Amino acid sequence: MARMNHRFTLAARPVGLPKPTDFAFEDEPIRELQDGELLVKVQYISLDPAMRGWMNDVKSYIRPIAIGEVFRAGAVGEVVESKHPGFAVGAHVSGTFGIQAYAVSKGDGVQVVDPRLAPLPVMLDTLGMPGLTAYFGLLDVGKPVAGNTVVVSGAAGAVGSVVGQIAKIHGCRAVGIAGGPDKCRYLTELGFDAAIDYKAVDVRDALRQHCPQGIDVFFDNVGGDILDAALARLAMRARIVICGAISQYNNTSPIKGPSNYLSLLVNRASMTGMVVFDYAPRYPAAIAEMAQWMAAGKLRSREDIVRGLDQFPRALLKLFIGENHGKLMLELPA
Amino acid sequence: MARMNHRFTLAARPVGLPKPTDFAFEDEPIRELQDGELLVKVQYISLDPAMRGWMNDVKSYIRPIAIGEVFRAGAVGEVVESKHPGFAVGAHVSGTFGIQAYAVSKGDGVQVVDPRLAPLPVMLDTLGMPGLTAYFGLLDVGKPVAGNTVVVSGAAGAVGSVVGQIAKIHGCRAVGIAGGPDKCRYLTELGFDAAIDYKAVDVRDALRQHCPQGIDVFFDNVGGDILDAALARLAMRARIVICGAISQYNNTSPIKGPSNYLSLLVNRASMTGMVVFDYAPRYPAAIAEMAQWMAAGKLRSREDIVRGLDQFPRALLKLFIGENHGKLMLELPA
Repeated sequence: MARMNHRFTLAARPVGLPKPTDFAFEDEPIRELQDGELLVKVQYISLDPAMRGWMNDVKSYIRPIAIGEVFRAGAVGEVVESKHPGFAVGAHVSGTFGIQAYAVSKGDGVQVVDPRLAPLPVMLDTLGMPGLTAYFGLLDVGKPVAGNTVVVSGAAGAVGSVVGQIAKIHGCRAVGIAGGPDKCRYLTELGFDAAIDYKAVDVRDALRQHCPQGIDVFFDNVGGDILDAALARLAMRARIVICGAISQYNNTSPIKGPSNYLSLLVNRASMTGMVVFDYAPRYPAAIAEMAQWMAAGKLRSREDIVRGLDQFPRALLKLFIGENHGKLMLELPA
Repeated sequence: MARMNHRFTLAARPVGLPKPTDFAFEDEPIRELQDGELLVKVQYISLDPAMRGWMNDVKSYIRPIAIGEVFRAGAVGEVVESKHPGFAVGAHVSGTFGIQAYAVSKGDGVQVVDPRLAPLPVMLDTLGMPGLTAYFGLLDVGKPVAGNTVVVSGAAGAVGSVVGQIAKIHGCRAVGIAGGPDKCRYLTELGFDAAIDYKAVDVRDALRQHCPQGIDVFFDNVGGDILDAALARLAMRARIVICGAISQYNNTSPIKGPSNYLSLLVNRASMTGMVVFDYAPRYPAAIAEMAQWMAAGKLRSREDIVRGLDQFPRALLKLFIGENHGKLMLELPA
């Protein structure tokens, strides 16, 4: 008797915030493996802001999800069957397994993970794509030096919280921008020097107060007015890392460009985009370094775990209304 | 009997385009030189887009012109009296002498120029600030490599025309964006591979046509919609040099930010501001190299010379409505 898979596919391209009808939930029998394939029982699935972009039919750094295709997502799970020489039954693996209970894979982009290094959810968080994005975006693009002031938006998120902590490890002053007192308290717990609640205070005033020497590195996950506020407070030769723009992803009107961009000229500053996939050859070294920081208590992570595959559409919305606390992911039944 | 000076001072801070009443024309006797001073009879005065920014009372890369102060301007002239050991009577000099017939100077920032190298107007053009801006902005910030596609906006201007010609000297494909058939014809004469008339064609379509491999370096003097069109056509790892934004300088509404800025992320591209003054220690070497290119016929310049100091307010407006053909300057009577 064939095992059954459950999965979400993309049913329609959303306008603005995704609606439940933009997704289809389907059951299907799992097919026999062919030589060179493995079957993964998915345990945790990462939900990320970038998913919104994948739903649009536009040229980007990765092709859009096709209508009817299983929804793309990073995940970790266990190999339960294998006809692939590189993956043994019982191994834990991470990969782009999608929003589904089981994934048949040829092994492309699949990595064996070591569950002794950290709990599995952390493999989708600080030791996964968000942590790697923070690591390479801050260190390779932002190029902070000790004593610099590093400001990060979306600071309580999976990427932002790691950016601030790595900034501290590198001897910088870390200032986080997040929405609401709970998130700001969390930043303080993580060791940020200051936390700015953009829902409660004027971000420009707060940046003036908390960055008296100006901003040397601004790591932006948010875009919109917060990017403009940071541009207004740059130090000379500042570096802005453009990692994302969650405030703009569900816009139905054109994206709001940063009207203060001429601050780049006044301050001889730069604004540079980054995509983590470019750093793939260096993932293992970065993961090893971050695992050491975690073991030493210098780098902490928090996961916001929603139980049940069927919760996907509702859980994804939490990201865009800023309701998640920590890295958002789905946990599937054992 | 004291010689008389004639000069323009800033009378009021303009809103939008400067009006004649924003300037005051004044006569004054020239005072006696003190030790360490020289008197320059001004011959040519440079009129530049950046002047508009100096009229605003805002923090920028240089302090604003004060109300009542002589209007700041770069110029060349002849030393007619000297109590300064570094400057002999009869020498030709360049410096920030302002919009006036005579300047008393302590020699700060004053350079002796060699009139055998090029005619004096060229010292304010290709061998002056505009040429140096093009040289360092393109080569140091844009970092073109042979085979790259370099696009420049404001291409028929003093900076833009040099950018395109240096791009060609470095083995790149040069595409210029300018307004009107005369300016576009001029670009072709200078050896640009393509000229886009933004008043006549859709800039996005034209960039698609003339940059089939995308834009590797975009040198922006203009901002606004043209910057957005260029962002939409970037090649991977493209470099945008932000040199100016003449389309936005007279805005009374907030500056239009580049709504396509997330193309920086998709293409791992960067946008960097530059101010030529940072490169002052390297001016002599750059001038020597550009003078060689001029002597070899590889680098040409064109000046748009308006005669008479009193023409200043009207001449300045030509810049902002795109009426000048070549580097705009005033010529004063001998």
